Amino acid sequence: MMMGEDVEGGSLGSYQDRPRTFPNMRNKAYTPLIFRILMGINVRVLFILLLLSLGMIFYIGASTSGIIVFVFTVCIISFLLSIYLTKWVLAKDEGPPEMAQISDAIRDGAEGFFRTQYGTISKMAMLLALLILCIYLFRSTTAEQEASGVGRSVTAFVTVTSFLLGALCSGAAGYVGMWVSVRANVRVSSAARRSAREALQIAVRSGGFSAMVVVGMAVMGIAILYAIFYVWLGVDSPGSMKVTELPLLLVGYGFGASFVALFAQLGGGIYTKAADVGADLVGKVERGIPEDDPRNPAVIADLVGDNVGDCAARGADLFESIAAEIISAMILGGTMSKRCKIEDPSGFILFPLVVHSFDLVISSIGVLSIRGTRKGSVKSPMEDPMAVLQKGYSITIVLAVLTFGASTRWMLYTEQAPSAWFSFALCGLVGIITAYAFVWISKYYTDYKYEPVRSLALASSTGHGTNIIAGVSLGLESTALPVLIISVAIVSAFWLGQNSGLVDESGKPIGGLFGTAVATMGMLSTAGYVLTMDMFGPIADNAGGIVEMSQQPESVREITDVLDAVGNTTKATTKGFAIGSAALASFLLFSAYMDEVSTFAQEPLTQVDIAIPEVFVGGLLGSMLIFLFSAWACSAVGKTAQEVVNEVRRQFIERPGIMEYKEKPDYGRCVAIVASASLREMIKPGALAIISPMVVGIVFRILGYCTGQPLLGAKVVAAMLMFATVSGILMALFLNTAGGAWDNAKKYIETGVLGGKGSDCHKAAVTGDTVGDPFKDTAGPSLHVLIKMLATITLVMAPIFL
Amino acid sequence: MMMGEDVEGGSLGSYQDRPRTFPNMRNKAYTPLIFRILMGINVRVLFILLLLSLGMIFYIGASTSGIIVFVFTVCIISFLLSIYLTKWVLAKDEGPPEMAQISDAIRDGAEGFFRTQYGTISKMAMLLALLILCIYLFRSTTAEQEASGVGRSVTAFVTVTSFLLGALCSGAAGYVGMWVSVRANVRVSSAARRSAREALQIAVRSGGFSAMVVVGMAVMGIAILYAIFYVWLGVDSPGSMKVTELPLLLVGYGFGASFVALFAQLGGGIYTKAADVGADLVGKVERGIPEDDPRNPAVIADLVGDNVGDCAARGADLFESIAAEIISAMILGGTMSKRCKIEDPSGFILFPLVVHSFDLVISSIGVLSIRGTRKGSVKSPMEDPMAVLQKGYSITIVLAVLTFGASTRWMLYTEQAPSAWFSFALCGLVGIITAYAFVWISKYYTDYKYEPVRSLALASSTGHGTNIIAGVSLGLESTALPVLIISVAIVSAFWLGQNSGLVDESGKPIGGLFGTAVATMGMLSTAGYVLTMDMFGPIADNAGGIVEMSQQPESVREITDVLDAVGNTTKATTKGFAIGSAALASFLLFSAYMDEVSTFAQEPLTQVDIAIPEVFVGGLLGSMLIFLFSAWACSAVGKTAQEVVNEVRRQFIERPGIMEYKEKPDYGRCVAIVASASLREMIKPGALAIISPMVVGIVFRILGYCTGQPLLGAKVVAAMLMFATVSGILMALFLNTAGGAWDNAKKYIETGVLGGKGSDCHKAAVTGDTVGDPFKDTAGPSLHVLIKMLATITLVMAPIFL
Repeated sequence: MMMGEDVEGGSLGSYQDRPRTFPNMRNKAYTPLIFRILMGINVRVLFILLLLSLGMIFYIGASTSGIIVFVFTVCIISFLLSIYLTKWVLAKDEGPPEMAQISDAIRDGAEGFFRTQYGTISKMAMLLALLILCIYLFRSTTAEQEASGVGRSVTAFVTVTSFLLGALCSGAAGYVGMWVSVRANVRVSSAARRSAREALQIAVRSGGFSAMVVVGMAVMGIAILYAIFYVWLGVDSPGSMKVTELPLLLVGYGFGASFVALFAQLGGGIYTKAADVGADLVGKVERGIPEDDPRNPAVIADLVGDNVGDCAARGADLFESIAAEIISAMILGGTMSKRCKIEDPSGFILFPLVVHSFDLVISSIGVLSIRGTRKGSVKSPMEDPMAVLQKGYSITIVLAVLTFGASTRWMLYTEQAPSAWFSFALCGLVGIITAYAFVWISKYYTDYKYEPVRSLALASSTGHGTNIIAGVSLGLESTALPVLIISVAIVSAFWLGQNSGLVDESGKPIGGLFGTAVATMGMLSTAGYVLTMDMFGPIADNAGGIVEMSQQPESVREITDVLDAVGNTTKATTKGFAIGSAALASFLLFSAYMDEVSTFAQEPLTQVDIAIPEVFVGGLLGSMLIFLFSAWACSAVGKTAQEVVNEVRRQFIERPGIMEYKEKPDYGRCVAIVASASLREMIKPGALAIISPMVVGIVFRILGYCTGQPLLGAKVVAAMLMFATVSGILMALFLNTAGGAWDNAKKYIETGVLGGKGSDCHKAAVTGDTVGDPFKDTAGPSLHVLIKMLATITLVMAPIFL
Repeated sequence: MMMGEDVEGGSLGSYQDRPRTFPNMRNKAYTPLIFRILMGINVRVLFILLLLSLGMIFYIGASTSGIIVFVFTVCIISFLLSIYLTKWVLAKDEGPPEMAQISDAIRDGAEGFFRTQYGTISKMAMLLALLILCIYLFRSTTAEQEASGVGRSVTAFVTVTSFLLGALCSGAAGYVGMWVSVRANVRVSSAARRSAREALQIAVRSGGFSAMVVVGMAVMGIAILYAIFYVWLGVDSPGSMKVTELPLLLVGYGFGASFVALFAQLGGGIYTKAADVGADLVGKVERGIPEDDPRNPAVIADLVGDNVGDCAARGADLFESIAAEIISAMILGGTMSKRCKIEDPSGFILFPLVVHSFDLVISSIGVLSIRGTRKGSVKSPMEDPMAVLQKGYSITIVLAVLTFGASTRWMLYTEQAPSAWFSFALCGLVGIITAYAFVWISKYYTDYKYEPVRSLALASSTGHGTNIIAGVSLGLESTALPVLIISVAIVSAFWLGQNSGLVDESGKPIGGLFGTAVATMGMLSTAGYVLTMDMFGPIADNAGGIVEMSQQPESVREITDVLDAVGNTTKATTKGFAIGSAALASFLLFSAYMDEVSTFAQEPLTQVDIAIPEVFVGGLLGSMLIFLFSAWACSAVGKTAQEVVNEVRRQFIERPGIMEYKEKPDYGRCVAIVASASLREMIKPGALAIISPMVVGIVFRILGYCTGQPLLGAKVVAAMLMFATVSGILMALFLNTAGGAWDNAKKYIETGVLGGKGSDCHKAAVTGDTVGDPFKDTAGPSLHVLIKMLATITLVMAPIFL
């Protein structure tokens, strides 16, 4: 009875008293087939093969442009650096066997889910590739296009290839994120027994590893495709296509990336939050046991979720952000240089690749600046990890401003407008400031140091109802400032671009859109470091879980708790960053879409007039798509969580020994329930996102044909895209911020204010937290991806709307 | 102790055992100053004055058009009918003194709040009138306009007058709604002691009274203004303005109406829901006493709220819906007949007035068809009141189809396109069907007979968190079908209009927009009956409260409970109706705005191209406005509810006798808290809605001037309006449906399923219900008004954007 009361109060007594919950159950790590084949080959052969392919890539790059060679070099160096980082992390010890066992269980769960999930995704990708092939093989082309070598079969092949490569790389980005996090988590736990600083460093370097790989892969993939298509299609030779049109061929890459990212985020997001909500509702609210307690049957599923939801999905998400932004900026750069008749347009086209090459360099410096040498043992008071991370970020930002200025001078200097590069450098600065402001605003609304979260915590004291009302209002209100900032950024970057001095034949200034593109690049110019901070969160979270489950002393838990809390903040702020860049990137992709349609249709599409009823209806449908998608994403979590709740309740009832550590809960069952449910539930919202723009485009194309309105389908889709983007940004901001604020209001109460843990106020706050979970980690991040996926799908599917 | 347990379980034992809670405290009813003056005048003088003014109005009407005389006649007949209905209702008995005492307390609270609230609103309206006067006196006009008699001073005077008249009528509509409901409630309670059928009939007839007055006043006001301006400005005489331009002068009326409605809805909505949430959170959740229990100190505030929030505000809301829709349709009718060069355009311009005259006739028939003659005493099993109301609705709908067809033939027949009237009749049918579909969809998502609410109830069984997640998903999902229906309605009505045979000089079909306008009128052609059903709800709710508080026998409560439940359903469905018509009306007002700007600017504004960054930013800001407005509306309720919770808790602690009926709670304190808080809290969202379009318009006008983009301000505001409309429709649908569903999920559990009253599942459902309260009765309905207010404010303020 005493035990029971302790448990109710959340206090667990000394750790040594309780039996170990994990028998020896260490399994072998799973290695994907491709690695196993590679490992089977003789090392020397492999090395030679690698060198050969590298040589070939460099050769092709060199025959394209010197800039491409520079990009390749930086990417390869950063790959080498990331190999060093992995080696460094893997060399750390895995701690006592009980930690390793738990980590193995997590790894098995994560890898198993990843296999099944990506199996499903790859099947869908193949189907979609087939559809794209058919669409492009049957679209109408002009004689001119056929003559220049980009006829039906060539574009079909090119688009499908880039789609598949994009999908593959996006999948790989997800895998890399998860691969490192399931290995780093236990090493962070183990290091936490020794020193907070070392634990922090391991977590950061693991995050840094996947960030380097993700960013490097996005840049490298596009650069390789660009170089190959350049050489293969004989670009810029007489009679062939112009280099300014080449970027349009790459859109498939962006679509492939966002397609995989969407399903990765949906599946992973549903997984992680269903397990979390289910575990919390029974464990914390009903039974009063702490987070990650080994007695909770859903705890392993929850920890697995962190890896597949946060690490894998966020890797894929940022991969496609960068890819989509690079491609749209390349398209706009190409169009602009064509209209300005710039002699060597390659600077404008390849600028985004150079920006992200520098991104790799400065982010590496930022990551490496976080050192483990300073003192900070378990005994001595530890430094604030947030301050350490922030210092790294400041270094990166300063370097970003410098390198961004340098790259604009290098790439964007043209004799036609000698001061244009400076205008664009200012656009980049606008982007960097916007990113900073976004990060700051998310912090203001989600950190409990500030007013909003504190009044949310206060609202919990009057009950569950007022807590939810206050959280919803807070989330809705938090959309205002970011929107104002994005508005100022778009208008000012556009204005700077217009006044850059670049003019078309008739003397009209035309640099505006490219200015916005440069601002977007500025915003993303520290993507590597931001992704590192983002990855840091779930690794720390997992490490905390392992520490808790392996029943380490209180002092170790304290260290991981601090890291976990910092991880929560960085996660929330990087979401602000991600949505800000999505907003800008989407506006660019929209412009690229208009360009693309004009090229395809041989008829300029320069206006999307919402005074036309059909176009207005398109907008209405676009916004509705966002609401419906969010509904399905949230309800997927809710439904799966209900299954978990029932299973956990069942185990507690059928095995009363669990609560007294006498029986082992059946973790596997919860893992299996969550895995199968999330695979099932991700299909509906994902299919909605992919099918609806196509259906709307075709229906209105037919309607336009019947009522004699040319390009109606394309215009309606454009309006759909724009309204979806606007609603999506707002909805994502609302969901992310509300979720983050609820989470931290709960944490604030747990520090002891308003009654502290176990009080009615805390219970109300936990309700808010569980509501916020699917908001901030399923629907919200899925919306980031959805916005860009919609933009890329319309780009790729444009031929069927015409 | 036994008592305490009973109370916890929600069962209250026999009523006679408990002491009466109300001492004798009957007060005199408040009579507004204007009525007191009128009552002071000799009856005969008053009668002669009335006859004289009627005669004058008819004389002016007759010199304008025969149609106006018809409209006047119908309106006056319906006013007479409404006087008959009031007399009939007031002749019913007020029941035993304890009922009358409670009713007096409610009436005092409601009238006191109304006085203060409308005092504030009228001050703001005067300020705004001054602003409009300045804007119009300083705007630029052309020599041509001055010559035709509509120069600066005339338009300034005309706009300000119509603004003030609109505001006055809107206020009167609200007052009438509240006036009758605070008198009908006690009569319904009293009748419930005798017969369910009689109670139903009284509630319906009271609702019918205010519906007749509201619709009649909207029609009559516009008709009078039209006739006066027509005669005064010498319209259609050579050198003067054309009749086709006359409707543009009436926009001030719509703005005045929506301005008052916005604040009425906000203030009333905050009042009613803050009191409700506060009462529920302490009473139901913490103390376990039933709804409307006399021991709850917030109960009178809650009952007052029903009157000021639901009756007064909804009266003003529907008044401005009808006014805005009539004016926009008149403008579009005028523009179209001008472009078609139709000889006598008055048919097209006055069509909406005729439609609503018929609306008055058929709705009266519908209301009177609900008779109290059939048996249904307290003893015998009662009829389903929903079926009775539905039968009345069916009668009204059938009559609407017939009269709508007849009016199109009468008004819209033109020799230029002999079959046009038939196309427009079909448009009207589209509107009527849309209304029906909307009502059905809201019922599907909010009635617990259907799947969605049942699974929401099931989600409550796994905790507060899953209940909220499921409710939010349900609400978000419920936006899909209505949007699809609105989309089909807009496109098909537009198509029917385009193919009506009406063409402009160059032979281009131009009837499309007017087709959409006719569909909107079709949708609103049963507004009178719908408003009756809507008013029915709060009256029944109040009657139930009085029955509960005056501790009547169980059987009486059962009758009012059934009426209350039906009222909940009708309230939810009429909200669907209101938002559907708002969507269509807003699209019309948008088109009217484009016409207006073109007229003012002497330069056609036919396109709003969202590919222009500034215009896109306008859209972003428009959507953001909706989110921020909803945030502030919800948080106003949350904050005020927290104050109520603290006050109620304080009273329960300081006066322990309350729970045992030994002490009387201090009802007045809760009323005072809620009244002052809601007056304070309504300012922020209201001011946001009014100021932001003006600020955006002026800022972008200046920006456009600096960057050489003509009409930029007007275009940005147009985009803002459209995006706000789309987001507003979706957000309102989400909020209304989620709120309704939570409410009914709770009611479903209270029928005894899933553990019934007092279970954990029920507690989770009550949390959902309290969250839904501000959604469905504050933010949601305020958004309906906001959407139309934005459209009318841009119309009136257009001169400052140019």
